[in-house]
Amino acid sequence: MFRDDLPTVSLEELQDHDGTGPDASVWVAYGRGVYDVTEFARGAHPGGDKILLAAGGDIAPFWDLYAVHKTGWVYEVLEELRVANLDSLGAERLAEAARARAAAAAAGGGVFANEPARSPALEVRSQRPFNAETPPGALCASFRTPSDEFYVRNHLAVPDVDPATHVLTVEGSGIASPVTFTLDDLASKFEQVDVEVTLQCGGNRRREMSRVRNVHGLDWDRAAIGNAVWRGPRLRDVLRAAGLPLDEDAVVSVQPAAAGASAEAAPAGLPAGPGRADAEASPTKRLRDLHVQMEGADTDEGGSPYGASVPAWRAVSAEQDVVLALQMNGEPMPRDHGFPLRAVVPGVVGSRSVKWLTRIRVADEESTSFWQRKDYKALGPATDWASPDLERARSIQEMPVQAAVLRPLPRGGAEAAVVDGTRPVAVEGYAWSGGGRGIARVDVSADGGATWQEAELRDESGQRDGRHWAWVLWHASVPVPAGADTTELVARAVDSSLNVQPERVGPQWSARGLLNNAWTRVPLTIRRPAACAAGRDAGAPSARAPADGSMRRA
Amino acid sequence: MFRDDLPTVSLEELQDHDGTGPDASVWVAYGRGVYDVTEFARGAHPGGDKILLAAGGDIAPFWDLYAVHKTGWVYEVLEELRVANLDSLGAERLAEAARARAAAAAAGGGVFANEPARSPALEVRSQRPFNAETPPGALCASFRTPSDEFYVRNHLAVPDVDPATHVLTVEGSGIASPVTFTLDDLASKFEQVDVEVTLQCGGNRRREMSRVRNVHGLDWDRAAIGNAVWRGPRLRDVLRAAGLPLDEDAVVSVQPAAAGASAEAAPAGLPAGPGRADAEASPTKRLRDLHVQMEGADTDEGGSPYGASVPAWRAVSAEQDVVLALQMNGEPMPRDHGFPLRAVVPGVVGSRSVKWLTRIRVADEESTSFWQRKDYKALGPATDWASPDLERARSIQEMPVQAAVLRPLPRGGAEAAVVDGTRPVAVEGYAWSGGGRGIARVDVSADGGATWQEAELRDESGQRDGRHWAWVLWHASVPVPAGADTTELVARAVDSSLNVQPERVGPQWSARGLLNNAWTRVPLTIRRPAACAAGRDAGAPSARAPADGSMRRA
Repeated sequence: MFRDDLPTVSLEELQDHDGTGPDASVWVAYGRGVYDVTEFARGAHPGGDKILLAAGGDIAPFWDLYAVHKTGWVYEVLEELRVANLDSLGAERLAEAARARAAAAAAGGGVFANEPARSPALEVRSQRPFNAETPPGALCASFRTPSDEFYVRNHLAVPDVDPATHVLTVEGSGIASPVTFTLDDLASKFEQVDVEVTLQCGGNRRREMSRVRNVHGLDWDRAAIGNAVWRGPRLRDVLRAAGLPLDEDAVVSVQPAAAGASAEAAPAGLPAGPGRADAEASPTKRLRDLHVQMEGADTDEGGSPYGASVPAWRAVSAEQDVVLALQMNGEPMPRDHGFPLRAVVPGVVGSRSVKWLTRIRVADEESTSFWQRKDYKALGPATDWASPDLERARSIQEMPVQAAVLRPLPRGGAEAAVVDGTRPVAVEGYAWSGGGRGIARVDVSADGGATWQEAELRDESGQRDGRHWAWVLWHASVPVPAGADTTELVARAVDSSLNVQPERVGPQWSARGLLNNAWTRVPLTIRRPAACAAGRDAGAPSARAPADGSMRRA
Repeated sequence: MFRDDLPTVSLEELQDHDGTGPDASVWVAYGRGVYDVTEFARGAHPGGDKILLAAGGDIAPFWDLYAVHKTGWVYEVLEELRVANLDSLGAERLAEAARARAAAAAAGGGVFANEPARSPALEVRSQRPFNAETPPGALCASFRTPSDEFYVRNHLAVPDVDPATHVLTVEGSGIASPVTFTLDDLASKFEQVDVEVTLQCGGNRRREMSRVRNVHGLDWDRAAIGNAVWRGPRLRDVLRAAGLPLDEDAVVSVQPAAAGASAEAAPAGLPAGPGRADAEASPTKRLRDLHVQMEGADTDEGGSPYGASVPAWRAVSAEQDVVLALQMNGEPMPRDHGFPLRAVVPGVVGSRSVKWLTRIRVADEESTSFWQRKDYKALGPATDWASPDLERARSIQEMPVQAAVLRPLPRGGAEAAVVDGTRPVAVEGYAWSGGGRGIARVDVSADGGATWQEAELRDESGQRDGRHWAWVLWHASVPVPAGADTTELVARAVDSSLNVQPERVGPQWSARGLLNNAWTRVPLTIRRPAACAAGRDAGAPSARAPADGSMRRA
């Protein structure tokens, strides 16, 4: 409903009030109404934090998800907060987005008929399979990423797993015969540990790499990463219960892949495959030279499951903290994140933390899945998709040091973020490294790297170096160059092994667009109040003037 | 003795024949004589490998060290190999260098009166204390660096330790009272393990950084690194024998530093300091939050020993392989490397591998030594020597991924290495990373980084990722750009966590000149036979022409 007593604003003006501007004001839209919910959101109102997800945008999809809000009194409360009308073009654009969401939901069908409900705050990169990242502002809002805002990386449709009947089968080299565990077994027969782990997609920040040269993969920006607490038994304890020795130097009989597969298929009473019939002749290897393969309940059109593997030494190590998670952030695992059971392999590319986990197999080769053998590979610049080196290339396991700026960022398709030139820029972001390495330092520069200052690090994990699986969040207040109209904001992290991020994306380019960990850069447009520059109206308040009215330069 | 029947060559011509040229010929000088020892050196002659140390230079200092050579028949043999006279300027320059060596040896006195004999092959960076690196050609000649060519990093004079009376004292938090071990205890009461570990000075490759902007420290080129097998008991086994629990989560009483120091000094029968008198009140900490301090027998003018520390979790970990070495490469430790006992901390900056080890103390703070608190620090670009941040900065422990070209290199003070443009350049080097990370890939480019190819890696360690403490050597055969007269050879390594070397030295600059791990670059001058280019004498053999006489371009 249009209200003549209020001003009319554009969608861009609405988007400017997303809580990250100088006055931190939060506006949301509902139909033609524009509402200032700054105080409301930060008060004690239940779901006040959720309304922030709609900051600078349409509140309707969030209200669809959190149905409690759709009552008459809520509309009354909201109308009291109204500050403007949204112009007709803006309203039409929001309606168009709503129609697209509805069409996408209706189009679900076939194998994608049973996808879970999802937060509309997620920035969708593909609908089927569903892949989405967290809005940057939400990512730096809390040290532990809320489960419903955590980035989603699905390779296939989300399986519908019945927790009452779900079992995990553990088998393979070093294990006499397959052992199955119910969820109840996993929850009651093993010590339950909480491990705080940041997961990151191997393609995080691919968008920047694709600007250098075309790459293959989802158009991930910088938020295909998140930090959560995962709870369940240790993988090593479950492997021990299945009979595997936990000493990486132990010599075990290698079970041929065929024997492993046929062991279950063989009818009771018959020999369980060649590996069993002639156990004396089976070759042996040290456990450290083997791999732990994992399969999920998600399957492709041919019925083959998603699969991945990690080296066996990592799976059995007391210091690598691999967990079979039943819970995420203190609640049952959400379906998008692997309900009811997923592996969480700390310090390693997210794709090895297999969701909807059904099977673990100790084997003398990596998982034979497409994703292990041809997808998440560390490719050099000389290797492309036609190269025979693709399968020989090293599988990505531990990830390199990474950091990204989450604020300020360009809004609404702009090339540059607009900042107030009369005060230092407040910069926020995350930093993380693989392999349990903590973050030693984050350097921030508002002059393209000519001068640097160190950011303040925020680490709520309590983890030590070497087992530091969680990220750090960081912030800095950095002066912009005097007199400049534009500049480049740069940040780079150094991890506890003193590895640094590379300066440019280009030399890291690879055909799959993986492993972009170059310095994070944000072009800035520096605004200084025109009144100030011209010497007129120096006393007049401005939306972008500092609260104390100070002006640094004429 | 000058021989009229032979040609006369300059020192530069002599230096050209150092075994790395296209025909791999090795010349050495002795007095005015120049000898081609190519075949001799590569034959079965005892010490034939040692003569290569003099390749392209004066053989006299090597013969001084290996006195067996100074017999009449050796001179006779040598004279048969004579190919030229050294010109008088060259002979005078070699004599001048010999006088300088003699003066340096004679100047030894005071605390430096008892330094060990050293290989003249070492490239000396400082005489007192003695610091020297391996010649690059020797470094890539063997996967295990010979002990007498291993880089030497001494912070003080080399102590003269009597192995018969030397003891190691282990004390501090979690240890009821100091325990001492003789060398015989360490060699006989514990399992002896061989651990192959590459050690690297934190200042390796400082020379390149000092070209960006002045830094403080020894002028290390690229060879302050070496790889050896170290044998002795595990540190964790010795700590366990002293009573320390090996669980990093164990809660131990923290012994105040003062109590630790006075425990030994107290006369028998008297209370051994406040920590003992009131043990109930002593604070507790988890072992993982403590440090293992180490002291050497080398002392400064005030009698304070060299000291360093590592986090306690690393010292007690079964996977970090910290060893108390009694042997290096299968022989007793050389004096320059810590005779009779040194710590070897794999994957960590060399300065924490304390030599001439006398004392280990578990404490709730890092070593208070100058070298721990003010020297080997990971400084950001904003920190200089006057900065109060110096002591607060993080101590270097694990080192980042590193690589350097060892061949070809510029010779005799030239800016560029000269290569034969008619064939691919044979490139050799090393690559290593800290923290047990192996090397995933080495990319090599002979066009400044525009195009890359992968090097062949040589790994004789048999170590797995995560406990990969040894380096790899690598080689590649890389075509130079057609038609160019100069180019830049570039190499960069990627470690198993997929961390990369940074592109440029400049952004890594720090006041102490530590941690330079930028891409390794060698300017090349490309020579193509003039005869070939001009179309004359195409059939005439040339010193730089390929053996098969082929010419790639006119």
